[in-house]
Amino acid sequence: MIIIKVGGGISTNKAAIARDIKGLDETVVFVHGASKTRDVLAKKLNHPTKRITSPSGQVSVLTDKKALEILIMNYSLINKEWVSIFQKEEVNAIGLSGADGKIWEGVRKKYIVSKEGGREKLIKDTWTGKVTKVNSKVLKMLVGKDLLPVITQPAITSIGELINTDNDRNIAVMAKALDVEKLVVLFEAPGLLADFPNEKSLVKNVKKEDLDGYLDTARGTMKKKILGAKEAFQAGVKVIYWGDSRIDNPVNFALEGKGTIIR
Amino acid sequence: MIIIKVGGGISTNKAAIARDIKGLDETVVFVHGASKTRDVLAKKLNHPTKRITSPSGQVSVLTDKKALEILIMNYSLINKEWVSIFQKEEVNAIGLSGADGKIWEGVRKKYIVSKEGGREKLIKDTWTGKVTKVNSKVLKMLVGKDLLPVITQPAITSIGELINTDNDRNIAVMAKALDVEKLVVLFEAPGLLADFPNEKSLVKNVKKEDLDGYLDTARGTMKKKILGAKEAFQAGVKVIYWGDSRIDNPVNFALEGKGTIIR
Repeated sequence: MIIIKVGGGISTNKAAIARDIKGLDETVVFVHGASKTRDVLAKKLNHPTKRITSPSGQVSVLTDKKALEILIMNYSLINKEWVSIFQKEEVNAIGLSGADGKIWEGVRKKYIVSKEGGREKLIKDTWTGKVTKVNSKVLKMLVGKDLLPVITQPAITSIGELINTDNDRNIAVMAKALDVEKLVVLFEAPGLLADFPNEKSLVKNVKKEDLDGYLDTARGTMKKKILGAKEAFQAGVKVIYWGDSRIDNPVNFALEGKGTIIR
Repeated sequence: MIIIKVGGGISTNKAAIARDIKGLDETVVFVHGASKTRDVLAKKLNHPTKRITSPSGQVSVLTDKKALEILIMNYSLINKEWVSIFQKEEVNAIGLSGADGKIWEGVRKKYIVSKEGGREKLIKDTWTGKVTKVNSKVLKMLVGKDLLPVITQPAITSIGELINTDNDRNIAVMAKALDVEKLVVLFEAPGLLADFPNEKSLVKNVKKEDLDGYLDTARGTMKKKILGAKEAFQAGVKVIYWGDSRIDNPVNFALEGKGTIIR
């Protein structure tokens, strides 16, 4: 089994990804994001995505109750789009959120601290957290019946609260629960770039021990990808393929090492 | 097995419904609507729900591409709300659209005709249809693992198009595929009313042969419920319980015959 995760960029070549997955010999669990379109919807609904900075300087999205609802609406729409695209390729996709069947059970952060202009602020209306438990039974059952699980946000807590979590870290927890040794992670760049955003600075091979070195220079979502990769190796993953989601053969090219291979 | 369908009204007592279902001895497949909140979202997104009248006088919602997207977003949000409420009651709900795993496979209408002020108009940007096939294997597998399937729009065509279909008629098709003999249908009224909207005019018992008689005086969504009930009996259903979704024990009261029993 292999876990394939695709980011939420708008230039993602969804049909090409579906075709590649159809051709794979291995069974697949598929995870996708939708952050870019979420931001568009949030604006239209007069609740633009707010980003806050933690005292340690990390920037993250503030998911208050309304933002959570917008997130669920948008991620679900993109989820059904993916299902439709897979079905067009005769792959029997089953779209799920992490909340469904408690596929992703997590712990909610009680509060977050933001720092604005020197002042720290405690925010309690926040619906984010971390996945700690995966319902691998349900996933294995679906895969065993030739269904392709297509999974996205939200996750759910033990007491039934819907929460936003991080896909890059969730796939590490899933890999452990499902004994998966290979991850494919696709996004809107050719792979890890030594000199972001210069796409010619692609790093083709990375040793997992060297990930920390890249963490310092990484920006934004790349930081989370590196953290997720580190957690995946701790969870028993043997190799991670990073590749470009925009091209004609996104999955195959990544697996052929045309992006970045980390091991 | 029993199929329980709840309408998309905003006064639905979701927690009470979840508690009742938790207490049932039978296994359940759950279907829900979300039309009221859909209309609110459509307005906010500057694409208010349009209703058209067919040449024969039937009023229906026009589901163009944008309306379909709004519908998917809203129904998915309500779907995850139901999942959260069931999970709070320790019922392991798995929220799905009819498109997922091709649970509801249907045929898309190529066009619809609307009549406005004497003139007939052909509309091709329409994403509605009729469910003709149910993936009972997937549903039985989920139910067999103590999962509660929580199903809503959209359905999907054989070539992967997402379409809006009618829940009242879908449960008839599901009943046939799943050999279900009992349906519970909850909405924002005590049951069938002889003198709508006078709630004291509740009809407690209806013979299935008499449904046609009620069809003439029925209005709006009640017409669809009666049509759905007729189709359900043709599909082998033995008894249908109509009841109030707003009260404290919606499912139990319906099953005790405090609403309308049709057989």
